[in-house]
Amino acid sequence: MSEFSLSRRLVAEALGTAMLVGTVVGSGIMADNLSDDVAVSLLGNTIPTGAILVVLITMLAPISGAHFNPAVSFVFWLRRELPFGVGIAYITAQIAGGICGSLIAHVMFDLPVWQASTTVRTGSAQWVAEVVATFGLLASILAGIRFRESAVPWLVGLYITAAYWFTASTSFANPAVAIARSFTDTFAGIRPVDLPGFVLAEFAGAALALALFTWLLKSEKA
Amino acid sequence: MSEFSLSRRLVAEALGTAMLVGTVVGSGIMADNLSDDVAVSLLGNTIPTGAILVVLITMLAPISGAHFNPAVSFVFWLRRELPFGVGIAYITAQIAGGICGSLIAHVMFDLPVWQASTTVRTGSAQWVAEVVATFGLLASILAGIRFRESAVPWLVGLYITAAYWFTASTSFANPAVAIARSFTDTFAGIRPVDLPGFVLAEFAGAALALALFTWLLKSEKA
Amino acid sequence: MSEFSLSRRLVAEALGTAMLVGTVVGSGIMADNLSDDVAVSLLGNTIPTGAILVVLITMLAPISGAHFNPAVSFVFWLRRELPFGVGIAYITAQIAGGICGSLIAHVMFDLPVWQASTTVRTGSAQWVAEVVATFGLLASILAGIRFRESAVPWLVGLYITAAYWFTASTSFANPAVAIARSFTDTFAGIRPVDLPGFVLAEFAGAALALALFTWLLKSEKA
Amino acid sequence: MSEFSLSRRLVAEALGTAMLVGTVVGSGIMADNLSDDVAVSLLGNTIPTGAILVVLITMLAPISGAHFNPAVSFVFWLRRELPFGVGIAYITAQIAGGICGSLIAHVMFDLPVWQASTTVRTGSAQWVAEVVATFGLLASILAGIRFRESAVPWLVGLYITAAYWFTASTSFANPAVAIARSFTDTFAGIRPVDLPGFVLAEFAGAALALALFTWLLKSEKA
Repeated sequence: MSEFSLSRRLVAEALGTAMLVGTVVGSGIMADNLSDDVAVSLLGNTIPTGAILVVLITMLAPISGAHFNPAVSFVFWLRRELPFGVGIAYITAQIAGGICGSLIAHVMFDLPVWQASTTVRTGSAQWVAEVVATFGLLASILAGIRFRESAVPWLVGLYITAAYWFTASTSFANPAVAIARSFTDTFAGIRPVDLPGFVLAEFAGAALALALFTWLLKSEKA
Repeated sequence: MSEFSLSRRLVAEALGTAMLVGTVVGSGIMADNLSDDVAVSLLGNTIPTGAILVVLITMLAPISGAHFNPAVSFVFWLRRELPFGVGIAYITAQIAGGICGSLIAHVMFDLPVWQASTTVRTGSAQWVAEVVATFGLLASILAGIRFRESAVPWLVGLYITAAYWFTASTSFANPAVAIARSFTDTFAGIRPVDLPGFVLAEFAGAALALALFTWLLKSEKA
Repeated sequence: MSEFSLSRRLVAEALGTAMLVGTVVGSGIMADNLSDDVAVSLLGNTIPTGAILVVLITMLAPISGAHFNPAVSFVFWLRRELPFGVGIAYITAQIAGGICGSLIAHVMFDLPVWQASTTVRTGSAQWVAEVVATFGLLASILAGIRFRESAVPWLVGLYITAAYWFTASTSFANPAVAIARSFTDTFAGIRPVDLPGFVLAEFAGAALALALFTWLLKSEKA
Repeated sequence: MSEFSLSRRLVAEALGTAMLVGTVVGSGIMADNLSDDVAVSLLGNTIPTGAILVVLITMLAPISGAHFNPAVSFVFWLRRELPFGVGIAYITAQIAGGICGSLIAHVMFDLPVWQASTTVRTGSAQWVAEVVATFGLLASILAGIRFRESAVPWLVGLYITAAYWFTASTSFANPAVAIARSFTDTFAGIRPVDLPGFVLAEFAGAALALALFTWLLKSEKA
């Protein structure tokens, strides 16, 4: 499908996830350092994250599809658009890239490189939030691809901009990013022990979106 | 007109209104929790709302037209582009979806699911504001459809971003959203008893826009 | 040129300038009411202004060109694209519409309808700022029209978003808006006695942009 | 290549860099004056900078390529798309224009015209940040040109919006802008003695992006 070699596709997934996590973690550190108003800090975390997503997806989608997210790769595997082996390679690249993103953010802000988060993010409200957040993300992607593929970078960037605020969990919506964020004890962190709940909720939300939108996007003519 | 079945169109209207209200109410709760500066909270409410509108309209307009708003469906019925029965079904789906949006926001933020707002929003200044807000919304939609249909998601998202700030009522401009917001006693709420004034003002503003723009958009050549 | 009648074009100019001023003045009142941090208030004034400009220009440019600004009409008259009489009618509509915008903002926020500003905005630094601000606005418009006409609404909205912050005067860059803003004693006001300096500086900046860009945009091939 | 004369191209580079630096420095002064919350000030510096980049690149790219940045001109020279002599002229125009931008910002805000910054920006964390920042900037440009040239103004504007926050150095990513910012002792300044570290890191980041993306963007078919 892609006219790019698998090695280039995997580098694109790793690089994109690294830059995404570097932005999420780095802007979280910067915003948290500079303000005592947590809503201002969250704005300083949201705007860069939304902006970089538009950039990264526009840049790298022609190479790898710009998933940067195991829940997205999982859905494309379910849709039989990504072979199982390639999907595993994608997810590995995403997780490895994401962790590098956290480490680089620490280097740039002169913090200890290796950290483990102590931020508690657990409980059914947070899990519902992650189901909703990932459902909406996949819904945007699936409908975007169907109706206006060139708009997908904007749809994802704007969706995440909104989802940072409408979900109590600030919308991780991405297992690789969640894992990477367990490697930072800063604004954007999540305790490693809270990962399973988030990751499961994210895959559940993604599967739900696939189920509903497979039906919803079927037109009479198609 | 739409190549999608009526059931899909109604699900699209319900889902879109639910996600819109979920964003309005959820981001209001988040922003209000995090800041003591009400202008910062309003920014944290505005930016997600504008962003999600671009996403939802791009995603769902090809299915149902992406009204998410009884005042919009009303105008399309007046323009004879929506049969009366379908219009009633649309409005029902919008109201039901909107209320679900409020409830889901409460679940995600671990608040009591069923609430009734106690926020007073009444008086002639507020009603003028809602007339103006809904006039401008319909004006954007009618001119957008006429001149550059692909821009409508952006026009609506940006218009509401502005209208949150230039109207004293923070621009509800949507009877279904207003009803849904009476089900939450948080930042974005409105007392149930204040609904009739808002809803009437919104339909009046919509009708006014239709009247003026039916004349204004008529070119010499057409 | 336009396929719309002169009366429609004048209504478009008046309505567009009214909605622009309504947004500038209304969001200024809202932002100033809600925050003690003037930078936060300016953000709450900037974002709506930039957003509504994209909307208004997209909506109304096909009818009247969407000048909403005597300095813009002046430049199009100098370029012989607007007859003198029509230019005077445009400017009259812009001024009348702009004043209505201030009055409507007052009604929506329950303030005295007729006001005169007491905000001092004078001195050579402010005038240089207005020359620069209007120079940049016309530069964006002239280059935008030449290279990518469909981008002009975005160019103007984003330019003004930036210019609110990089000029000490917060970039009025528009004589009709300046006049309208002398009718409000709120965040966005300007003393009537300070108008002549602003208006002159704005026309000077516009003329400067026309001179430079007439040369700059001439390609070898053309 | 360009259908515009060299003198027009140099004026475009000088004017664009002047307006970019005028925005960076001017909005920094404004934001710093108006707020005690440094994160709010950085928002008031970020949003105008991102916005003006979209405007300036759209306006001037058809004339000169809209580099405004010696690191960008350097990469285009390495790609053999800019002759050595023209590259030197571009860089000279960028530096001269950038310095003018700082001076004009001072005039507009009624500050001493000639200043030298005293803001310390040094150390390996800052240099790593500048390598990363410039790597990402050139990566966006190179991938953007390859896949969707019309999106480049947005990619650069959004990338810098993000990079202001995810890098400890607030992402200068531009030797001409860095030099110009040493001429202002305000929010956006940098001590002259810290320039060499920044400039070297920026060229290194640019070269790194060229190396990686020359490989990454090579498709099987090409």
